[in-house]
Amino acid sequence: MQEGSWIQRYIVPLVTADGADRLRDDVALLSAGGASIITMDTLVEGVHFLASDPRATVGQKLVRVNVSDILAKGAEPQQALVSIAWPKSAAESDFEALMTGLGRDLTEFGIALIGGDLVSTDGPLTLTMTLTGQCFSSGPVRRTGGRAGQDLLVHGEIGWGGLGLQAARGQGDANVVRRYQVPEIGDRSVAQVVAAQASASMDVSDGLLLDVSRLAAVSGCGAAIELANVPLAAPSRALEKILAQCVSGDDYRILIAVPFGTEIPGFSRIGCLTESPGLVLTYEKQVVNPPSTLGFEHEGQL
Amino acid sequence: MQEGSWIQRYIVPLVTADGADRLRDDVALLSAGGASIITMDTLVEGVHFLASDPRATVGQKLVRVNVSDILAKGAEPQQALVSIAWPKSAAESDFEALMTGLGRDLTEFGIALIGGDLVSTDGPLTLTMTLTGQCFSSGPVRRTGGRAGQDLLVHGEIGWGGLGLQAARGQGDANVVRRYQVPEIGDRSVAQVVAAQASASMDVSDGLLLDVSRLAAVSGCGAAIELANVPLAAPSRALEKILAQCVSGDDYRILIAVPFGTEIPGFSRIGCLTESPGLVLTYEKQVVNPPSTLGFEHEGQL
Repeated sequence: MQEGSWIQRYIVPLVTADGADRLRDDVALLSAGGASIITMDTLVEGVHFLASDPRATVGQKLVRVNVSDILAKGAEPQQALVSIAWPKSAAESDFEALMTGLGRDLTEFGIALIGGDLVSTDGPLTLTMTLTGQCFSSGPVRRTGGRAGQDLLVHGEIGWGGLGLQAARGQGDANVVRRYQVPEIGDRSVAQVVAAQASASMDVSDGLLLDVSRLAAVSGCGAAIELANVPLAAPSRALEKILAQCVSGDDYRILIAVPFGTEIPGFSRIGCLTESPGLVLTYEKQVVNPPSTLGFEHEGQL
Repeated sequence: MQEGSWIQRYIVPLVTADGADRLRDDVALLSAGGASIITMDTLVEGVHFLASDPRATVGQKLVRVNVSDILAKGAEPQQALVSIAWPKSAAESDFEALMTGLGRDLTEFGIALIGGDLVSTDGPLTLTMTLTGQCFSSGPVRRTGGRAGQDLLVHGEIGWGGLGLQAARGQGDANVVRRYQVPEIGDRSVAQVVAAQASASMDVSDGLLLDVSRLAAVSGCGAAIELANVPLAAPSRALEKILAQCVSGDDYRILIAVPFGTEIPGFSRIGCLTESPGLVLTYEKQVVNPPSTLGFEHEGQL
């Protein structure tokens, strides 16, 4: 790898923001004004994506897992820094593909690349993005703002990440595989809804049931979920299949707590926050035992 | 590794800033006000530090390589996010040591840890820090502001990084090894000088001669360096030993261009910027051929 020339050839063309000074410096100027938030997510080959995943989709996934965190806070993504630890023996064409995917989704979500780092590694491809966002209201919508009695809504469908990973491992349907490689996430209009209406919000990345439990716990509540109301990637009446989709990760959908009775297009009401702690599951109003594993804890988001 | 419990046990205690919301969320609030800058640096085991380096010093080095970038821009470090890709088989005691070193230097440099990510990897320990800084003047001092005729000054001594690495590889003097493991860098008073007096500035991380060439080139100049005036870690009159220290990396000292004749305590005048491009070296006014390698390009700072 020729770091200097790769930066010039593949990365500088993605950099247009004034504050980045065409990457001629070690630092970038942050945009000013309003409430700014920041997040950081890392993807490791073999842990967060498959070694066989096309590098273009890996670049898109890196953007999307970070954008998802920003949108879930009622904010619009703004500026990104990217660190790439590139395996010494990997081909330049793979690097080009990574940058193509990265560039595509930076454009898609209106993000300015302002800096980062490119280093070589003896290990797996390891990617870190730091992404800033501008809040649509006076600050980020926290996970902690939920109150007992509020409704829990989720945006989009749940389970595509898990189904896609399963398909990828079994050489399954390419359209389903793609849902794992390039997760569908919300856009700025979803973030505006979150900012205007949600008391608490987070993205669902480690499994719906685990993330519902987390939001409820840090809000000082419990939660009750009606499984029949969860919008599933693969709708089913078999409890096992429903639960499997509710505990698989990599969905990057948004979960919000809103005042009782609030209806929002694109969002589904899946349950409510309760006074008593813990998670209660029902299916067509019959109580169901929660599965032993509520999600994937391979992520340690700080 | 139990990401969740390790975060609670080792990382949350380091987090006290309001904007971090005790790490209960995916994002942190950025501090507002003034000109804010941001940088990101990655350290890979076996590339940027030795597998045998104590994990406490690795944590300190992660802070220092980033702080060095911020100080060199005439700014004070403020908020940090840290991503840790932790080898699956590594011991918890090593993680604790990493956090101890990290915490020590976050405190030393007055930095608030506000977020990050902790993931596992099959590869080498890989650490990324994103660090923000607040400029002491209206914006960062860029690399590009140098003009022909200006003096080039360097803060502190040059060559400790290389000598320390050499010693570490040969089981050398522990005090010298430590200069590689925990580079000495400037502090906020140095950054204030940079903000007040420098036309161009950068940190010297890849070898003095390479970094002088870079600053000169992006400022549209050349440079002339008098080797006898370079403040060396191991002073010598042997040209080979002088040049070796001027091309070794990992020094994290600050190089600035200032108006002709400017004298600043702690800084040494090593040469000047010239109208004609390229690098001219002299030793006691005799022209010296530049070495074939001016520094280490293993870093690909974006």
